[in-house]
Amino acid sequence: MAFTDDDRRFLNLAIEQARKSMSEGGIPIGAAIVHDGKVLAAGHNRRVQQGSAILHGETDAIERAGRQPATVYRNSTLYTTLSPCFMCAGTALLYEIPRIVIGENRTFEQSESLLREKGVELVLVDDPECKELMDTLIANNPELWSEDIGVEASELDAAEDSR
Amino acid sequence: MAFTDDDRRFLNLAIEQARKSMSEGGIPIGAAIVHDGKVLAAGHNRRVQQGSAILHGETDAIERAGRQPATVYRNSTLYTTLSPCFMCAGTALLYEIPRIVIGENRTFEQSESLLREKGVELVLVDDPECKELMDTLIANNPELWSEDIGVEASELDAAEDSR
Repeated sequence: MAFTDDDRRFLNLAIEQARKSMSEGGIPIGAAIVHDGKVLAAGHNRRVQQGSAILHGETDAIERAGRQPATVYRNSTLYTTLSPCFMCAGTALLYEIPRIVIGENRTFEQSESLLREKGVELVLVDDPECKELMDTLIANNPELWSEDIGVEASELDAAEDSR
Repeated sequence: MAFTDDDRRFLNLAIEQARKSMSEGGIPIGAAIVHDGKVLAAGHNRRVQQGSAILHGETDAIERAGRQPATVYRNSTLYTTLSPCFMCAGTALLYEIPRIVIGENRTFEQSESLLREKGVELVLVDDPECKELMDTLIANNPELWSEDIGVEASELDAAEDSR
């Protein structure tokens, strides 16, 4: 399915959340979960704000959506400014969320082949604003970013160099 | 690696958490994360207690362990009374937790082949107490259990019937 005007609008909500997180001194990744065209919740990474190891953009949005029946998740789209890590991908798989709109995957990509293998439709936007937010974080605070994806800052440098 | 006396002790912590959750009216699944023989945190499912969609036993334990450097996770063992769903498995993969001790997988098994494929060592205990806790929940409240794994209660029945 194409990237629609509604998708643009909902991805913008996720970007707004990412900007909010950055303004709070946090990691600028945001997300939203939308059911049948209605926003259930939006959220953002809360590693810094709440000292959280599990509240990434996507899990925060899903948590804020509250307890939902299986049928709701199965007719929802997840919007995220950055390609999902295994935790967030696994959460989408648990709840059988069928479609994920991804702002960008140049900064980080871990789970897309797994998600596709399990039948999830991925829409990759390659949005420059999403990428710029992550570039700014990584330039200013690589240790914080590496912590969020479970690597050491030195490994982040190695990964950058090997590109 | 074998199931050691220490493993028994740490799995018992997870079971204690599962019992605590049941006594609170919640889903009886518990977990603990242990680094180099030291308990970082224990936790349990909080769907009922906190209206949470993402606090399963394993994610609750990892959240309660707080922000940890990559090297800590990579030398930790995760103990859980029930075989991990995709969300919890994905969280272990994100943080490269190398070993998971699983109380039982007769009630539910979703991610073990993925975890093994990614190199995680799984120790399956087949503990009767873990199984009994889930049997009690499913007999008394199948809707709650089905919600936790993202299915409809009717699908749970179908899955049971097909065994």
